Parts: sequence; C-alpha cells; structure tokens
Amino acid sequence: MGAPMRRQFLHDNRLFPADSVTRAIAQRLFKEVRDLPIVSPHGHTQAQWFASNDPFPDPARLFIVPDHYIFRMLYSQGVKIEDLGVGTYGQTPEAQKAFDARRVWRIFAEHHYLFRGTPTRLWLDYIFQNLFDLKERLTAKNADAYFDAISEALATPEFRPRALYEDFRIEVLATTDSPLDSLEHHLALAKSGWRGRVIPTFRPDAVVDPDYADFATNVARLGEMTGEDTSTWRGYLAALRKSRERFKAAGATATDHGHPTAATADLDAIEATKLFDRVLRNAQPGTQTESHAQHAADAELFRAQMLTEMARMSLDDGLVMQLHPGAFRNHNADVHTRFGRDVGGDIPTATDYVHALRPLLNRFGNDARLTLIVFTLDESSYSRELAPLAGHYPALRLGPAWWFHDSPEGMMRFRELTTETAGFYNTVGFNDDTRAFLSIPTRHDVARRIDCVFLARLVAEHRLEEDEARELATDLAGNLARKAYRL
Amino acid sequence: MGAPMRRQFLHDNRLFPADSVTRAIAQRLFKEVRDLPIVSPHGHTQAQWFASNDPFPDPARLFIVPDHYIFRMLYSQGVKIEDLGVGTYGQTPEAQKAFDARRVWRIFAEHHYLFRGTPTRLWLDYIFQNLFDLKERLTAKNADAYFDAISEALATPEFRPRALYEDFRIEVLATTDSPLDSLEHHLALAKSGWRGRVIPTFRPDAVVDPDYADFATNVARLGEMTGEDTSTWRGYLAALRKSRERFKAAGATATDHGHPTAATADLDAIEATKLFDRVLRNAQPGTQTESHAQHAADAELFRAQMLTEMARMSLDDGLVMQLHPGAFRNHNADVHTRFGRDVGGDIPTATDYVHALRPLLNRFGNDARLTLIVFTLDESSYSRELAPLAGHYPALRLGPAWWFHDSPEGMMRFRELTTETAGFYNTVGFNDDTRAFLSIPTRHDVARRIDCVFLARLVAEHRLEEDEARELATDLAGNLARKAYRL
Amino acid sequence: MGAPMRRQFLHDNRLFPADSVTRAIAQRLFKEVRDLPIVSPHGHTQAQWFASNDPFPDPARLFIVPDHYIFRMLYSQGVKIEDLGVGTYGQTPEAQKAFDARRVWRIFAEHHYLFRGTPTRLWLDYIFQNLFDLKERLTAKNADAYFDAISEALATPEFRPRALYEDFRIEVLATTDSPLDSLEHHLALAKSGWRGRVIPTFRPDAVVDPDYADFATNVARLGEMTGEDTSTWRGYLAALRKSRERFKAAGATATDHGHPTAATADLDAIEATKLFDRVLRNAQPGTQTESHAQHAADAELFRAQMLTEMARMSLDDGLVMQLHPGAFRNHNADVHTRFGRDVGGDIPTATDYVHALRPLLNRFGNDARLTLIVFTLDESSYSRELAPLAGHYPALRLGPAWWFHDSPEGMMRFRELTTETAGFYNTVGFNDDTRAFLSIPTRHDVARRIDCVFLARLVAEHRLEEDEARELATDLAGNLARKAYRL
Repeated sequence: MGAPMRRQFLHDNRLFPADSVTRAIAQRLFKEVRDLPIVSPHGHTQAQWFASNDPFPDPARLFIVPDHYIFRMLYSQGVKIEDLGVGTYGQTPEAQKAFDARRVWRIFAEHHYLFRGTPTRLWLDYIFQNLFDLKERLTAKNADAYFDAISEALATPEFRPRALYEDFRIEVLATTDSPLDSLEHHLALAKSGWRGRVIPTFRPDAVVDPDYADFATNVARLGEMTGEDTSTWRGYLAALRKSRERFKAAGATATDHGHPTAATADLDAIEATKLFDRVLRNAQPGTQTESHAQHAADAELFRAQMLTEMARMSLDDGLVMQLHPGAFRNHNADVHTRFGRDVGGDIPTATDYVHALRPLLNRFGNDARLTLIVFTLDESSYSRELAPLAGHYPALRLGPAWWFHDSPEGMMRFRELTTETAGFYNTVGFNDDTRAFLSIPTRHDVARRIDCVFLARLVAEHRLEEDEARELATDLAGNLARKAYRL
Repeated sequence: MGAPMRRQFLHDNRLFPADSVTRAIAQRLFKEVRDLPIVSPHGHTQAQWFASNDPFPDPARLFIVPDHYIFRMLYSQGVKIEDLGVGTYGQTPEAQKAFDARRVWRIFAEHHYLFRGTPTRLWLDYIFQNLFDLKERLTAKNADAYFDAISEALATPEFRPRALYEDFRIEVLATTDSPLDSLEHHLALAKSGWRGRVIPTFRPDAVVDPDYADFATNVARLGEMTGEDTSTWRGYLAALRKSRERFKAAGATATDHGHPTAATADLDAIEATKLFDRVLRNAQPGTQTESHAQHAADAELFRAQMLTEMARMSLDDGLVMQLHPGAFRNHNADVHTRFGRDVGGDIPTATDYVHALRPLLNRFGNDARLTLIVFTLDESSYSRELAPLAGHYPALRLGPAWWFHDSPEGMMRFRELTTETAGFYNTVGFNDDTRAFLSIPTRHDVARRIDCVFLARLVAEHRLEEDEARELATDLAGNLARKAYRL
Repeated sequence: MGAPMRRQFLHDNRLFPADSVTRAIAQRLFKEVRDLPIVSPHGHTQAQWFASNDPFPDPARLFIVPDHYIFRMLYSQGVKIEDLGVGTYGQTPEAQKAFDARRVWRIFAEHHYLFRGTPTRLWLDYIFQNLFDLKERLTAKNADAYFDAISEALATPEFRPRALYEDFRIEVLATTDSPLDSLEHHLALAKSGWRGRVIPTFRPDAVVDPDYADFATNVARLGEMTGEDTSTWRGYLAALRKSRERFKAAGATATDHGHPTAATADLDAIEATKLFDRVLRNAQPGTQTESHAQHAADAELFRAQMLTEMARMSLDDGLVMQLHPGAFRNHNADVHTRFGRDVGGDIPTATDYVHALRPLLNRFGNDARLTLIVFTLDESSYSRELAPLAGHYPALRLGPAWWFHDSPEGMMRFRELTTETAGFYNTVGFNDDTRAFLSIPTRHDVARRIDCVFLARLVAEHRLEEDEARELATDLAGNLARKAYRL
C-alpha cells in the first residue's frame, strides 16, 4: 500500500475529506478498525464455493456476469445483454458455447469510464490493486493484460475460495437460502473440519409470497421436506417452524424477507386460515377464481400476515428478522422475460413504514427479545419514519444503507439522517449484501472509512470526543453486527 | 468558558466546521449574536412555574421524566418505562411513592452513551457545564456526584424559575394552552409586578378536533366558559372568538394547531353547519350513528374547515397562526394505553402541503395581514412544496426545523433546502418548542451556531458578503421571530 | 475580472469551497471549461428578438417583469403585482400607459436583500458586474444610478440581441414553441445570413393536453395548418407527424412535454381511438357529457397515451423527447385569474416515476435509438427512482436540476444523489431553461462551477483522478448536451 506505482489509482486516503483536521482524525480512527475481522451477516455468496473450493472461473464470469451493478450500467449505455452472456440467456447451451470471456472483458474495459463516481469503480480498483497487484487504471488498452493477470492469479491456490476467506480475515459469512434448499453445502462445510464459518439465512419468499413463481408447488414441496400437511394453515405454519429449526441447526441466526412493501398484518386465526385457503387455492394452476385485483390484495395481505407470523416464530426460536422491502422487481418486462430475475431492472419505490409496520410492531414491537432489522430503498424515510420508529420500539433496528445506497454518499446520508434521532446503537453495523465474494473486503473498507469520516466530523465539530468516536468506530465495524445478528 | 477543565466535554467552537476559513467567519458572526436576548415564541413550559416560583424538583424529575427525547431512546434500548416513572403511570400514587430519583438518574447515566451524536447530548452537556459547573462528562461512575451537585444547586435561589428566566436573558416566553385553561397563572404573573413576559398561545385542538378525547364535553365546557351556545355552529364560532379575545387580553399573539395532516377546507356556511352538527352529534357518548370511515372523514374535514375558520378570525383579531401537522400520534397502542399521550411513540408521516393548504391559501393566502407559520416533520417537503409556497403566498411563512429535526443536521438541511427558493425572510427565526425550561439557552445556542455556520459557508463561497451575513445572523437570532409573532 | 473594485460583489472564486485543497482542484478544472462555447438545448427565449434584433427595453421590462423568480419573491413579501406591471395585467393598455420603469426598478432595489442566498442574486450580480460594469452592490440608494447605467448600455449596438449572442459565445440556442406557431422568426433567421443558430423545440401541450385552454380549437387549428382531419385519431396523429416534420425542417432536434404527472400509457389502437373521440367531444363547448371526475381521468390518460405516441414518432423522425412533469400549475386561483399563466404560483408536487413511466419504457425504453430526457421537481425521486431507471433503460437520460432546483445547492444535490447509481454519462449536461436572455452566461457559469466543485471533491477524496475529472468537466459543460440533443 502507498507504493508510488499504486498511488496511481487507489490512494490510501481515499474517501477521507480534504480538510486536514478532519482527515487526521479520520485516519486515526480508521487505523483502529482497518484490520479488524470481517463480520458479514447478510449477503449472497454461495456455500458451494467453499464446500467444493474450486477455483473461480475467468475474469468475465467472476466480475461481469454476476454483477448487476455492472451490466445494468453497460446496458443503460447501449451494450447488449447477449454480448455479456448475462442472466438466464447466459445459461443456455448455445450462449455458454459462444461465451468469449476475453471479449466480455474488453467490452467492460472499453466502458470502464461509465463507472466514474460510482461505488463499482471504487470496489473494482481495490480488488485490482490489492488482490491482483495491478498497477494501472483499467483502460481499453490494458484490457488484455488485466485479463491475463487476473486469469493467472485465479489459477493459483491463493485464489481458491477458502484461501481468500482466510486472507480476508472473515469471521463469519452468512448466505441467503430458500427453505427448499437442502443446505447440503453448509452441512458439508460443517463436517469438513475447515475453520471458516459460513452460515445460512432463512429466506422464505418462495413459500410465503403468493406472487412468487410456482408458489403452490413450493408450498407442497415444503410439506414434503418437513412431513407436514402444508395444504392447511396449521400444517403450513408447522412446516415453516420445522424448516426454521433445520436452518438453525445448520448455523442460521437470522431470517430475511424481500417484500414489495413493508406491509404487515395481524389477523386472527380464523381470518388467517381463510386467507391462506384462498391464496393457496388461487395459486393452483387452472383454478383461479378471484379477480386480478382481489388476488393482488390477498397476496399483499398474506405477505403482510406472514411477516407477523415470522416475528411470532422468532420470539420462539430466537432467529433475528430482516425486512428488505420496497423494490419494484423486474420493471423491464421484456428484459425480464428474456433474461430472468435480477436482470430486469429492479427499481425502488416510495415506501411507507409508519402505517405498514404498525400491526407487527403493535403486536411484538415492545418485546426486546425480538430483533427486527429494517432496510429501505427510500431515503426520504430515514429521518421521517425509520429513525423515529427505531428510536422508540425495543424490537426495531435499522439496517445499513442498502443496494443503490450502499455507496459513500449513500452511507453518509444514512448516518446524517438517522443518528440524531435513532443514535448509533439502534443501527446494526454493515452488511456487504454481495454476490461478489472478492468485493467483500473493499465493501467493508468503504463502510469503515465512511463511518470514520462521519465520526471524525463529529469530533472536529466538538460534538463527540475522540475516545467515544474510537469506541463507536469499533462498534460499527463489527460489534453491533455481532450483537444484532446474535453471532 | 474555555477553561481547561471544561474543554473536556463542551468546546467553545462546538458545531463550527473544521475548515479554518469558514470557522473564523462563523466565529465572527456568532460573536454578534451569542449574547442577544432570547425570544421564545413557541414552547411548552408552564406559566405556573414562574407564578409560584417554587424550586424545581430533583434531577430525575427535572431532566428525565418530562423529556420524551430521553425516555424514547432509553425505551428503544430495553429500559422499562416503569423504571423511569414516566407518563400517566408515573403519576399514580404507587408510582409516586416508589419513585427513586437517584435510581432513575443512575439508569440514565449508565445509558448516556446512547445519546452520542444526538442533540440531547449537546443540550445536556451545555446545561451540566454552564448551569451546574460540572467538569467531567457524565458516566455511570460519576452519576451520584452529578445527582448531588445538581440537587444542591436546585435548592438555591439562583435556580428558582424567575431567577433562571432572568439569567437566561429571556425577552419573551410563550407557553401553549387550551381554550379550556383558566390562564390563572398568566394573569397572576401579569399582576405580580415581576418583569418577565410569559404569554399564552391559543391551542384549540381539544375543542376543534373531533378525535380529541372528550371532544363533546370540551365543546360544552367552552360554551359555559364563554356564555355561548356551542351546540350550534354559530354559537361555537362565537365562543372561539371570545376565547381568543381572552387569550389576547392575557398577552397571546398567536394560535397553534396540531393536526394529523395539513388539510384545509373552505366550505360554505350551510355545509359547515351540517358538518358541525354531524360531528358534534357523533361525539356524544352512545349516539354514534356514522360508520367509522364516515366519522374519520368528517373529523378530518372538520379539522380542515376549522383551520380556515381560524385564519378568518386571525384576520379579525390579529393573532398569528401556527400549523404543526404530520405526526402519527400514539403509534404504539399498548404503551399509549398504559402510559398516556406523548409517551406512546409519535411518528412523522409523509405530508402533503400543496393540495392540503390550497383551500385556505386560496381564501386568505393573498392577504399580507395574515401570518400563517407552517412546520413540517417531512423534510422532503422543504424544497418541493414548502419553500415554493412560502416564496409565493404573502400570508405564508416557514417555521424552523421541528422536533426530530430540531438538531444540527436538521437545521442545516432546513437552510440548505429552503433558502434558495424562499430566502431567509420568509422564515421566522427559531422556536425552542421545549418542555425543558433549562434547555432553552442551549437550544438557542445551537440554532444560532448553525445559522452562523450556514451563513459563514455562503460568505466563504462568496455567495454573500460578510456585512449581509452579520445582518442576517441578527435577524435570524431574534428580529424575524419578533416580526412574525408580532412581539 | 478580479479588479479590486469588482471584488466587492462578485468574487472570482464564487461557489468554490473554502477548503484550499478542493478549491485549488476546482479552480484548475474550471479553467478548462470557463470559456467553452455555450450549448443551450432548452429554454424560453424568443426567436423574434434575434430576427428583429431590436434593442431590449428598459431595465424593469428586461429584468423584473418577465422573471417569475423575482416577482414571486417580491409578491411573497407583500409587494403588489400591479405595482410591478406583471402578467396579463401588465399587458392591458391602462397598465402599459401607467408603467413607470424607474419606479418598478426602485421597488426591486429596495427589496434586493430578500434575494440573499438565492440563485437570482448570483445571476443578477454577474450580469450587473460583467455586462454592465457596475461596481457596487445594488441598494435602494444606488437604484437610480443602476437604472441609468443599464438604460444607457441597452441603447448601444453591443447590447442588441445578436451582438450579445455572439459575445456570450453561444453555439446553439433552442427556444420552446407551440405546434400552432408559424416559426416565422426561426425561418427568417435562417434566411438572414446571420451565423447564430436559434432552433425551435416542439412543445405540443396546447394540442395534446385536454385541460389546456381552448384545446378543441387548438386541435382544429392544427388540422388546418397541416391539411389533416384532426377530428379523427388517425388524422390527428398524422397532423402531429407533419407538424414535427415542419419543426425539424426549421432546425428542431427535440420535443418537450410539460405534464402535471409523469404518467404514460400504452393503449391499443381501438382504446386510443375511443379515448380521443371522448376527449375531443368533451372539449367542444357546450357538449360536456362526462362527469368532472371522468373527464379528469380521461384527460390524464390521454396525456399519458400521447407521451407514448410521441416516443413512437421520435423513433421515426429522430427528435429527442423531454419530459418536464410534476408542477401544480396556477396554485393561486385568484392571482391566476387576474394575472394569467406563469404568475399564479406553480408549485411542485410529489411525483412518481417508477409506475408512471413503465408503460412507455416497456414499449420503447429498450430501444437505444430513442432518447427520453426526464426532469423532476421532486428531489426525493433522484436516488430512489430516476437514477436507478436511467442506470438501466438505454433510452432514458436524466435532465439537470430544474427550476426551483436550478441553483448551487440544487445542482450539488443532483450530482450527489444521481451519480453513484446513474453515473455521469446518463445525464445530459446543463439546460439554462431561461426566459432571461442576459442570464444565460451566468447560469452556465454557475452550472460549470458546481460541476467542477463536485468533481474536485471526488478528486480530493481520491475517488477519481484529475485527468478523468478534466474530461468529465468538459463533457458536462457541452459534449453531453451536444450528444443527447443531437446537436
């Protein structure tokens, strides 16, 4: 670090403010947390990588194909998704055969300038320099040299998943998994004797969201897996309970819920039973009897009720709840149809929390044994709704700046807009939330830097003393996540 | 100030930016306004304190029990409300008997770290150091020493309400009062010969909001107090007019309205009469004939109409109108039931002004003799709705950053988001809006500092000249409040 | 520039941050773009000014009467619109006769302090100093001297429209015009031999918005002008196509659409035909058969459908689309009635894009041959909706900070809230959007400075290298506008 050649595209003082007083404080604070172990309580890496410990494929398949931040930007500027081999299309035999990793890499390199000012640029520069020892900024000209250097490194033992996990100083890494998943890789890892801690997270969207593809089939499959009759409300709840137990046994400490809104409901058992029956009947192919509007309302109410059911189960089994609401999924119908989920333009929407969360919070929000971590894509809710709610309900905590806001400016706004009302201790530290395993260190690096900058400003403006800021920096870098996620 | 021992937890340059150029300008500007008298045109202190001039009770009853900022944060982190003696529970004989002020103080001291980065921390540090001459940051260790020092001071004559009022250099202090209040303490004060100016504010929620507890009884009581028949629309309006006159005679210059939304209406006399009859009939115990939805709609429309009626009366009697909309009151049903109003989690909601205020503004907004001061808890409305409205209608002014946004970051956002469209002269200076009398100087101190920092940035960036900034700092520190509130 | 006398009210480092590191970078970047030619792809100047090349009238008619930023602020503080000679009132013979330019100028000068902290202040100071060589800040005292100096200058050949256009180094200037406009001045200019490029923009609100005054008459007139039968959906579309061709032949490269919302629709031909028939029938005087609510819904749906029709035509003729939604026009009914459009308080409203734009985007948003530039008055949509949409759809670009947000703070928020998700290259550079021809250089000066400050911060924080920032500054100052608007 700091060697003249490297200074070129990744500065050791990156993200620190220019003002020398604040910068000096930020540097001192960052020194305390820079090398702390990484706690990653929420993300989308694959347990299989660590179970099999196979080398990662070529640079294109590693960096471009799975990264929606990257292909979204390329697509917005006219690059064709077919040319990147992305999504379901990329998984067809023809596409796999035609896939030319070097060609995809060159397209990316030619468009690298599009990422100026974005977190993607920061993340990749860190990886290129710190992991692959590259010394010049990526351009169309050095694209091939980059490709070769990265390819060469990926073939070495140091770049196998487990070796990187250790090199990254990861303390715990949570994946995100369906109740229909066998968790075989997590179980294999546990038996393997490897010291890494890769734990699943219970994400039941496929079996609690009536709008999820193949919902009825999924619910039936859940019944088979648990030996419960999931055609009844009672059996369905029992199956979910068993499924959660299975996750817990495999190391899970949390659940996660990705809903279009933050709506919750608190129906009585009779209403809930009727709703379940209606929803399940309507989900059977060929048996839809409800109007589209009625079905949509039922689906929304069912998701809402299921959040409250999950909270009830969390009070029993101790799993921490996470709620990630507010994305309009697959906004681009044509691209969704042709390339599948996570490619078709997920776009945030205005999201209400104050009315939406009330049924659940009024039922369980006063119970400090429950932890419900809420995220948002609607920054206008930070100071207006989320900080006041988290600054009141014992069960509620604020998740960090998420997705489009997982960025230097986004993280800074999160602190500026929540701290004065919710404080630091109603937040839960950082989530890297990534599919890109190699980006985990840089994402935590960015988060720790920005928190240190925010704290440094408070110290420089005499709103906090430096010993307090040091303690806070350490708490934000890991302790709050350990506590909130019960790790 | 500035003595080495004190530097420890309250710096004389607090809230000033680290950049030396801007800081120097801010210091020069602040020097001009630091010691100006305090104009407090809106707040929630009690006239009785000054009328009786009794000593304040112990530190816990002074600082913790009445401060919703404090017990909200403690509650969010698992402290029980019962253990703090807060709300209606705290007023029961058992609770009063069991109340252990030192124990409550210790709980607070143990959790003092929760307030890092919050305005509560800033306010209290100022009070501890400047009023009680405490020299170390509050911790669990020095909790008892703090308790003793504060208790001892509170027993001295210098800490009686009137002495503090004078020491604080308060020029005028407005309380907030119901039309059902006798104003006896205000009247007693006026006769007392004491030179302090403590004036009431007409806050008619209890008699204009059909959802207010005991609305029908309150309206009947208003009739008794004024000798008007408040069972008719005409008599009801006459009673309100008389009541306003009574407040005016007791020194009031303003009214205040705390509504769930900013809705206004401009019904004709026939519609208004019918609405009043419906609303009043439904408010009689045992006579509800309307559906819940119809009642809710009527209540909302009635509150909306009453704002326009209040504007009409203001044009006659010259009282300035304040509107504080947008809080979802008592969000936490269980806590509200057990501990009462102002404890149960009031949470801001998304608030529309552009459609909501139009009926009133189209009726009276072009009349420069009316002053309507509007506040918001929804910061997204600052630049989108409120600054454009206040930058157009002669009757409209923007109240300062309110409640959850009455904080350094919140005040700075207020200026950044409103000044370019509404200017400074469509704003009304600072409101401390506090129940905590001892916090009045520190709240004005924070507001003056932040305004000076904002102005200093404009000067440093050559967007304003320093002589103009000096004039503005003085106007923001008092003149704008004097003018807007007709003090 | 920079002479001691001038430093008084317009500093060469204006808008640059106080921090010396960032300021030095900003200065270096600004040096690269300061003198670049001005590309003005969207605004409200008049082709006639350049066709006739008559001198501008007195200072009041030049600066006050046409500038809604100015009279809005004066009106908000109690100045009467009649006293300013503004709006339709100002065009009556009595008002024209009574108009006293010097008196209006004095009123403005007396209230000049109201504009402290506003962009109007910055714009005017630049004009006063740089164009009229005035050396002191405007005050009530020097109002007459200002008036005389400006009047004198306006009488000279150097202040004729064409001379100023050249002096301002304008490369291209787009006006905004109705399909019912003859474009005679644009055509005359083209034949005149003058080297200035003043091009029209196709703004069809008058013939596509059923709520526009005289809609039916306008549609009939469109038919006459194009020789098409605009009483049928087919003929109406053909007339619009011909009209667009006429604009294109006169130099237009873009259309513009000012709608109350961003709603789009994608009806089939049968539904669209029925809707057109209904809307046109209802617009005929004396034939309204629909309820008010039904008419409002039809009007909204028709505007929505017409945006999609315009996109379809753009794919054929290559005109770039601009959408300016979200203003509640003529909020102040009384002022609107008495003084006409653009005087009666246009106020932004909360604006949804994610659902509203979907029909159009799902139809044409994946076609990179289309360019749809979207603006907003609702800053909460920047990071939540607009940046994610523009960072995905190939056809979508973000217009710059608009109207109330066309200001230093507003422009900075635009970059801070959009760059991390949409990058710089999904934005389109600056629009001055002005009726005030003399303000064009200062508006571009402000935009270039703020972009340089934003870039300088990224460089100072090592998020971007200075060679990249230089390239970006140049792109933002002109290249992006040239490309997006096909100039």
